[in-house]
Amino acid sequence: MVFNINNFFDNRNRKSKIADFQDLDHLDGVSISTVSANLYDQKRDDLVLFYFRSGASHASVFTQSRIVSENIKWNKKISSKNLSALLINTRNANALTGSTGYNAIKELAKDLANKLSEKQNLDEEYSKEIKSNEILFASTGTIGEKFPLNKIKNVIPSLIKNIKYTQNKLIWMKAAMGIITTDTKPKLAMSECKIGSTIVKLYGIAKGSGMIYPNMATTLGFVFTDAKLSSTILQKILKESIKTTFNAISCDGDTSTNDMVSVFATNSARNPNIKDFNDPKLKNFRQSLNDVLLDLAKRVVGDGEGASKFISISCINAKTLDDAKNICFSIANSPLVKTAIAGEDPNWGRIVMAIGKSYAKIDEKKLSIKIGPFKILHKGNLFKDYDEKNVSEYMQNELLDITIDIGLGKKNFKAYTMDLTKKYIEINADYRS
Amino acid sequence: MVFNINNFFDNRNRKSKIADFQDLDHLDGVSISTVSANLYDQKRDDLVLFYFRSGASHASVFTQSRIVSENIKWNKKISSKNLSALLINTRNANALTGSTGYNAIKELAKDLANKLSEKQNLDEEYSKEIKSNEILFASTGTIGEKFPLNKIKNVIPSLIKNIKYTQNKLIWMKAAMGIITTDTKPKLAMSECKIGSTIVKLYGIAKGSGMIYPNMATTLGFVFTDAKLSSTILQKILKESIKTTFNAISCDGDTSTNDMVSVFATNSARNPNIKDFNDPKLKNFRQSLNDVLLDLAKRVVGDGEGASKFISISCINAKTLDDAKNICFSIANSPLVKTAIAGEDPNWGRIVMAIGKSYAKIDEKKLSIKIGPFKILHKGNLFKDYDEKNVSEYMQNELLDITIDIGLGKKNFKAYTMDLTKKYIEINADYRS
Repeated sequence: MVFNINNFFDNRNRKSKIADFQDLDHLDGVSISTVSANLYDQKRDDLVLFYFRSGASHASVFTQSRIVSENIKWNKKISSKNLSALLINTRNANALTGSTGYNAIKELAKDLANKLSEKQNLDEEYSKEIKSNEILFASTGTIGEKFPLNKIKNVIPSLIKNIKYTQNKLIWMKAAMGIITTDTKPKLAMSECKIGSTIVKLYGIAKGSGMIYPNMATTLGFVFTDAKLSSTILQKILKESIKTTFNAISCDGDTSTNDMVSVFATNSARNPNIKDFNDPKLKNFRQSLNDVLLDLAKRVVGDGEGASKFISISCINAKTLDDAKNICFSIANSPLVKTAIAGEDPNWGRIVMAIGKSYAKIDEKKLSIKIGPFKILHKGNLFKDYDEKNVSEYMQNELLDITIDIGLGKKNFKAYTMDLTKKYIEINADYRS
Repeated sequence: MVFNINNFFDNRNRKSKIADFQDLDHLDGVSISTVSANLYDQKRDDLVLFYFRSGASHASVFTQSRIVSENIKWNKKISSKNLSALLINTRNANALTGSTGYNAIKELAKDLANKLSEKQNLDEEYSKEIKSNEILFASTGTIGEKFPLNKIKNVIPSLIKNIKYTQNKLIWMKAAMGIITTDTKPKLAMSECKIGSTIVKLYGIAKGSGMIYPNMATTLGFVFTDAKLSSTILQKILKESIKTTFNAISCDGDTSTNDMVSVFATNSARNPNIKDFNDPKLKNFRQSLNDVLLDLAKRVVGDGEGASKFISISCINAKTLDDAKNICFSIANSPLVKTAIAGEDPNWGRIVMAIGKSYAKIDEKKLSIKIGPFKILHKGNLFKDYDEKNVSEYMQNELLDITIDIGLGKKNFKAYTMDLTKKYIEINADYRS
């Protein structure tokens, strides 16, 4: 089955300009470098550096796992509102590696800060001392293995030498390729919008692709913008957007120790100062960030391990938002629902099962279920015109909608997931992530 | 891979006699009949009647799904402490069938009661009027399809004609075969013990095999005993035993609308009267019921859809029992853990991931993990003698133990699950349960 991710974006009614990632080009204040630190057996870029020569304000959200990787612990301690770099490695999660793993980050940060300072000082205009605590780290890969500090340190010089101050779509593509693990496709998205009368850009990259459940699970997502916005404002916008984007996706209900989604603003654009999150001038930017995050999140699900179908699950008219979420994810995480969809079997009883096992309040007599445009259950009764043949046919599509109407309130939520196929088992039974 | 279920019972230190189901024979007061009501396309027994000519006291636990099938609604209303029959059908769950489904049960109960009364009255010794509300119903199969009332009513006469007052292992086997759906094996277990000086028997049958998560999910489990025990006492014993047996297993985290586990006591044995749950004379019986339920529950997991490995997960030294359960099931329900085990990959980082995503309180520095006899993580550090080769070898076994030591308290829980294989997908993508 050819799975066309671009179909996700059909008929979308956007206020901001959204384009194919082919349009990603230069973004002022961001420098990119990728190298291979030989972390994999085969040769591939596995280390990606984003360098902000003039600094960047930033905001991040992290995994909600009770066990977090050493780099996440490091990041959580960063209090600087002005960052200099983000370093991303694959193959090793640096989780459950104890003080050795944490000290490795410390040493790496120091080394990277020193070498970046040296580079920075070559150019008087940008001359300044870069500090360890201006560097964020993202890691993804196997948990519990020793962090390959030396392999990474060995390539820092060439990583810094490779820094490009001007980007184009190929460099963005290399960065997106450099952070993936079992992903079958690089994930990029972009948007442009205005703050006041100033056009600003938002470029994003992400990786999946197993362990994707609400709070982002081995998802790394990074959005870069040239907008002039404080870290405080960015944090509020990210917090708002994450709920309906990266926290609305699930591949298999598993959650990683390493998730993070960050937004970096280089402040190069000369947009008006924004001091208030509710400033009307910020509205388009908020929408644009949401668009980019949702595009990336959908790309993560669409490329979820073994996915052959992309499923949008809407729960409407629930009593509480929690109920609506609970029902969406109970369906999205049900192996029986996901295998039925893989088999294109309109076995809607499994959807009922998943609704029933959620913690949400249900009144059977008010419950309605639609698959695509087809009513199946209507207020607790099989819909009079229900014809299984129509739904069977509909289920052969790659993009499927499931709508649950609880009929008990006014709260809605929408979650995104994919089907569960033999390919998922193949990838996860044989692959050491 | 040949999966030898009998290995589960090696080295078990039992106080009561436990034997192979080959030993199941007559159990006084229980009559069994099985027929085909043509509910499936192929010819097979799909309707099983247990008839208690002299009545039976009983206890049941039901699914905790928010949406329950019509027969479960019926059963929950049964207040009679003295039952006459249990009728089990497969192929149709009678769930989300509304008042039509409920009325079908009502009509069936009336019909069955009438015809059983007629039969009963043929023999003066047993002559009595059987009432509708002395009959329990169990259903398993597809949700939302119209309940096949007429097909079932049509075969009630032959079902009653087939009633055998004396059982043997073949009849028990037919009953166990008559209630299965995607199960690959019938599930039977037995135990004998003494109440006072009277030997009593406990015979059990069960079905799985997808949708098995704590609160029993398309599990039907029935235990029959000739012991003389009141419904009140039975309910207490069942409530005690279910926690560590059927509520300690998980196949895929899905839960059905139709689960039920029931115990029936024909009161034929002349054991001493038991009025108090804590009566020391009841101790062996309580252990025996636990043994039979645990055997059945393990057989359900061992025959879980696509299972190639049986996994016991112990969480010890947790702060609360809830924490211990939460961690066990977070591991048991993790697709990434289950696929790693299917692939015999000692990727223990996925176990850490599953612990992290549970709600339980964790201190990394106190966390220890063992796979089989092999220490991997010891108080947050990789164990000094850890050799992945040993664990890789161990993982080729069919029966695997995972032990998580939280080191924060004294509460323990043990859960049982199986691995996640391509076969699971095959069964569930193609099969209409």
